[in-house]
Amino acid sequence: MTKDKVGFVGLGIMGLPMAANLAKAGFELTVYNRTPGRAEQLEGPTIRIAQSPAEVAEASDIIITIVSDSPDVEAVVLGPNGVIEGIRPGSILVDMSTISPAVERRIDQELQGKSCSLVDAPVSGGDIGAIKGTLAIMAGGERKSFERVLPLFEAMGKTITYCGPVGNGQLTKLCNQVLVSVNLLAVSEAVTFARKNGLDPATMIQAVAGGAAGSWQLSNLGPKIVDRDFAPGFMIDLMQKDLRLVLEAGDQAGVALAAAGLVHQFFNSAQAAGDGRAGTQALAKVIEKLSAV
Amino acid sequence: MTKDKVGFVGLGIMGLPMAANLAKAGFELTVYNRTPGRAEQLEGPTIRIAQSPAEVAEASDIIITIVSDSPDVEAVVLGPNGVIEGIRPGSILVDMSTISPAVERRIDQELQGKSCSLVDAPVSGGDIGAIKGTLAIMAGGERKSFERVLPLFEAMGKTITYCGPVGNGQLTKLCNQVLVSVNLLAVSEAVTFARKNGLDPATMIQAVAGGAAGSWQLSNLGPKIVDRDFAPGFMIDLMQKDLRLVLEAGDQAGVALAAAGLVHQFFNSAQAAGDGRAGTQALAKVIEKLSAV
Repeated sequence: MTKDKVGFVGLGIMGLPMAANLAKAGFELTVYNRTPGRAEQLEGPTIRIAQSPAEVAEASDIIITIVSDSPDVEAVVLGPNGVIEGIRPGSILVDMSTISPAVERRIDQELQGKSCSLVDAPVSGGDIGAIKGTLAIMAGGERKSFERVLPLFEAMGKTITYCGPVGNGQLTKLCNQVLVSVNLLAVSEAVTFARKNGLDPATMIQAVAGGAAGSWQLSNLGPKIVDRDFAPGFMIDLMQKDLRLVLEAGDQAGVALAAAGLVHQFFNSAQAAGDGRAGTQALAKVIEKLSAV
Repeated sequence: MTKDKVGFVGLGIMGLPMAANLAKAGFELTVYNRTPGRAEQLEGPTIRIAQSPAEVAEASDIIITIVSDSPDVEAVVLGPNGVIEGIRPGSILVDMSTISPAVERRIDQELQGKSCSLVDAPVSGGDIGAIKGTLAIMAGGERKSFERVLPLFEAMGKTITYCGPVGNGQLTKLCNQVLVSVNLLAVSEAVTFARKNGLDPATMIQAVAGGAAGSWQLSNLGPKIVDRDFAPGFMIDLMQKDLRLVLEAGDQAGVALAAAGLVHQFFNSAQAAGDGRAGTQALAKVIEKLSAV
């Protein structure tokens, strides 16, 4: 069986290393990035640079897109010279951006009209996970499409989960973001409480991180808060985009998200203070300000 | 060097197995429990049953108390026939209850007048941790008192942290409870969001638990919520007692705890619905009710 030919649209901080891992795994790649110059950073005999998403689609059996937000996906897929203009019957579009589940379902409808299908497969794990090939990948779509795409996922990620029909990858990613952001709020309050009460916050973290209070956010971002290291792993501006998707999906389904709504408002305060491009752990500065730390 | 003689007051669900672990480690014990019959469950040639906390203190170099709340500690230490009536100069009281840091400081003042000292050392890890001897112990007090008590802690716990002066053990435990309860709120919202949007919540947990969304609460209580298992590991009534201590200490130090305050209110709703003696994971039922799940 010959390997599927892969197209890749969006060579940003996540996309570039993900495409590199596909090339390393032996996939033949046709790539496109809006900003020129990025594609040239990929090297290899099996990599071809295209002039548009449509041209990527023409050359590929499976097309991956990973761009910033819902309108960007709509532009590269449904817009002029978009994927939909070049895609061949039977091909699969795999959107690995984090965007609206409703938009994914709409795009899937359009693709069905071309005898194609969509797998929505947002990722978690950041640029380090993208480089190391250890991303968590949460996928929605028809199971047979998922299974055809699985070898690509295995070249880019570690925890790969089939979550059900189109849109369920995005919905699972949004659950992820509820957990990440509310856990970070817990860390911010605990560290602020510790400081204001004269505890050494590093000792506090060490005392509690191994038990029922433990979380990835506490162990990884807690020490950064203590050390006043607000450099981005994941930027507040991007988290806010994701929380907007969370609250929008919550509105549509009728879910009352008190804590996720609260942390979104606190991140608004961080953005107002100029910390939009800081790491999410700068949330702690908002919580500290409330308590005049 | 002969081993310190140990007194133990409070043979409840936590105290009984903790005392048993001390006896197993070879400590000579004098024990007291308000409700008769509990002490008889401890067996061994080195265990003596006393008729009052004062009698426990007379016979001991180090006296451990572990009871329910601040008034209970005040009663067994400062009340009639309390520890303070029998304690000998140079002895150490180790209070392992979770109570107010301010009350611990007041008790320490009283003990100083008897040439004794206090170590406040609340625990985390539940009855299973107490039985297995794997508790997290967060201790406050003079360092030399802490070091004298350390062999006892090592018989009962695994992660043992010296947190600074008297009261700092309690303050660290309160940070622990902020993290535990707000992380659980995150889990409750994520699972409810998943359900309302047609995701399989067990698959969602599996997809995200290994990454940045991961927490002890998600991995341990998330599946119980999914399986509708609300039996108590840790009861809501007890969590509410602890959150009252959190918010009281926050009030006194001027800490604005939006998320911890919110989860306290949601637990009030759980108590109103008759779930006070359910496990903390019954918080999810409150969040579900808000969204008419």
